[in-house]
Amino acid sequence: MVYITRRERFCAAHKLYREDWPAEKNLEIFGKCSNPNWHGHNYDLYVTVKSKPDPETGFVVDYRIMSEIITEKIIDKVDHRNLNLDVDFMKGIMTSTENLAIAIWKELEEPFRQMGVVLYSVRIQETENNSVEYFGQPS
Amino acid sequence: MVYITRRERFCAAHKLYREDWPAEKNLEIFGKCSNPNWHGHNYDLYVTVKSKPDPETGFVVDYRIMSEIITEKIIDKVDHRNLNLDVDFMKGIMTSTENLAIAIWKELEEPFRQMGVVLYSVRIQETENNSVEYFGQPS
Amino acid sequence: MVYITRRERFCAAHKLYREDWPAEKNLEIFGKCSNPNWHGHNYDLYVTVKSKPDPETGFVVDYRIMSEIITEKIIDKVDHRNLNLDVDFMKGIMTSTENLAIAIWKELEEPFRQMGVVLYSVRIQETENNSVEYFGQPS
Amino acid sequence: MVYITRRERFCAAHKLYREDWPAEKNLEIFGKCSNPNWHGHNYDLYVTVKSKPDPETGFVVDYRIMSEIITEKIIDKVDHRNLNLDVDFMKGIMTSTENLAIAIWKELEEPFRQMGVVLYSVRIQETENNSVEYFGQPS
Amino acid sequence: MVYITRRERFCAAHKLYREDWPAEKNLEIFGKCSNPNWHGHNYDLYVTVKSKPDPETGFVVDYRIMSEIITEKIIDKVDHRNLNLDVDFMKGIMTSTENLAIAIWKELEEPFRQMGVVLYSVRIQETENNSVEYFGQPS
Amino acid sequence: MVYITRRERFCAAHKLYREDWPAEKNLEIFGKCSNPNWHGHNYDLYVTVKSKPDPETGFVVDYRIMSEIITEKIIDKVDHRNLNLDVDFMKGIMTSTENLAIAIWKELEEPFRQMGVVLYSVRIQETENNSVEYFGQPS
Repeated sequence: MVYITRRERFCAAHKLYREDWPAEKNLEIFGKCSNPNWHGHNYDLYVTVKSKPDPETGFVVDYRIMSEIITEKIIDKVDHRNLNLDVDFMKGIMTSTENLAIAIWKELEEPFRQMGVVLYSVRIQETENNSVEYFGQPS
Repeated sequence: MVYITRRERFCAAHKLYREDWPAEKNLEIFGKCSNPNWHGHNYDLYVTVKSKPDPETGFVVDYRIMSEIITEKIIDKVDHRNLNLDVDFMKGIMTSTENLAIAIWKELEEPFRQMGVVLYSVRIQETENNSVEYFGQPS
Repeated sequence: MVYITRRERFCAAHKLYREDWPAEKNLEIFGKCSNPNWHGHNYDLYVTVKSKPDPETGFVVDYRIMSEIITEKIIDKVDHRNLNLDVDFMKGIMTSTENLAIAIWKELEEPFRQMGVVLYSVRIQETENNSVEYFGQPS
Repeated sequence: MVYITRRERFCAAHKLYREDWPAEKNLEIFGKCSNPNWHGHNYDLYVTVKSKPDPETGFVVDYRIMSEIITEKIIDKVDHRNLNLDVDFMKGIMTSTENLAIAIWKELEEPFRQMGVVLYSVRIQETENNSVEYFGQPS
Repeated sequence: MVYITRRERFCAAHKLYREDWPAEKNLEIFGKCSNPNWHGHNYDLYVTVKSKPDPETGFVVDYRIMSEIITEKIIDKVDHRNLNLDVDFMKGIMTSTENLAIAIWKELEEPFRQMGVVLYSVRIQETENNSVEYFGQPS
Repeated sequence: MVYITRRERFCAAHKLYREDWPAEKNLEIFGKCSNPNWHGHNYDLYVTVKSKPDPETGFVVDYRIMSEIITEKIIDKVDHRNLNLDVDFMKGIMTSTENLAIAIWKELEEPFRQMGVVLYSVRIQETENNSVEYFGQPS
């Protein structure tokens, strides 16, 4: 098995805010991330898949194809968007980086399976100090 | 003269959108940056000042003091905020990185002069591919 | 399970030197790291914990709390200090990056357990070429 | 067990091209990587080994020795070379990053075993967006 | 005046080799860069232009347009190519990074002038240790 | 004129402390940098020289020669050393990054002049947030 990782980037606005909580509680729990007028990030998304390399090409999967899948399924929907308002696969979900990684996993698992490779990990670098990684559920 | 540079970071939402233009023109001119629901960035702000080092300390200016000035005058006002809605010194100004650099220069020039050093440059790295630098107006 | 990683940084002096060895042997085994007058590094410390995200907040653990724990237990004790002389949890231990990672693990394991999350890994980047990672002992 | 990682760098030319395929098929499958006149990269090679630290030195293995092994077995053979034409351990192998990682693993596994440590992973960063990691075959 | 910088990246093969010198002299002067079978790099190209921001948009020049010009005039000609063999504007020129920066300047100066901005600098980062910057000729 | 920059790295211990001041004043002025038992950094040193490229080689100066000069004059004296105790050209000088940049300039100016190039700038990156640049004295 060889593991290959493709990085794609997106810039998005979001906030951490529960409408069923008063503003004070949102501020207490989520701090400055609860700013009602939003804030945003440059997100780095690292997607890792694994497979045996194809004996003819030496590829696990062509990086171009990997990039196309991630771009079509994720980047086109989140880049220069609002994660709370504009993204179908985040509807009704708190936009923590943890939840974002899980949601992106769900979007990517099946398309990569159809390519003949296994999705191994989704990692999101939100700032240079903070990152999240998700490996799916044990089967 | 020695030049010292302090980096501070902030995460903010913004959009490029003129209310006096129809949505179509905003989309044509500003592309995906015109998304009505905002997007955002991790901004890296590099501030450079120059002076002769103090003979007793060897400092142009203490990095801690430099950080405090930038934090008080800029970071506290822009971090986890919306550049279009929440920032007093950007009121009525298009939030392009160019204009942001000029506005930050205006906020910082006088406080550093009072510290006995000369503001030399304000540089903003908006993404890993895009950055802006402003050196003030020739006197 | 979702894994989140927080980076904190510290700058410290240290040397690799055994008092029970003659200077020549220290130089032979530890090379320039044995300089009697010390040397130092900017260390990047990456701490990873794992847990199910909280359904209300979407957090494994708030990055701010994670940062506070690492700062209180580690950074306040090692930043701008001498790892051989100033750090209680390194007393009597060779200050190799390997031993430092193990020692930091021991300091952090219990505080994170009390937060309801499991410490997964401690990684230290000592230079851009050299890093160490420790995952604890198999239970 | 502690894991230590050493990075070494090399700059090399290569192309992805099968002589048993017509030029059109090479272009279709390998895209711009099939340019007959070659292209090249700055490759970052990360080698990770694991072991218990030596109680006398606190080392899994001295970084200098780790660097010497990687340099002798790999870097001296690939740096400022052509991966398709100049490298003995890539003879007859498609120079995909996947195959390169597997081939480097095979060169390094035995030398590190003789040092008393276990090779854990070979990771190659080919561009800032693309990387490959290989962990060997399950025994 | 505000200065904006756009980074574009390309991967290319090249060698430093004079056909009018014997192989020994090429090796002596150019070292491993003279390898007859080529080597290669990931080049980072930073292009800086300056102008007053447009009062309507706040732009010196739209990054997208800046990227299109650099891509059409430079990247499409050098990416995944051989700088010695495949690039029209490097024909008959030693492919040192210094000469490459000068040649790229000549290709970009006029197109940016037509956009109403002034080319200020061309910087090429060849490896993490080596870079070159060219500011044109004093007029 | 073309400007080329070479980066070299060193790891060193130091402290900011005046023996003619009481410990309290050192702590007040220099903060945690005054720790009597030292601290340390990974310093990145960027040296820029300028010249017309040699018409035969296309070089301002060979990077290998540039590296040898910087290594012999600076790195061999500061790497894995104590800047206050071990470095001849810092004797009696406060080891602020400002003073270090000026002192390194003085060591490098003449050797580069003898190489036929002009030293343009010495830049030291002390942490990812703090850096200093020195351009010499106007002649």
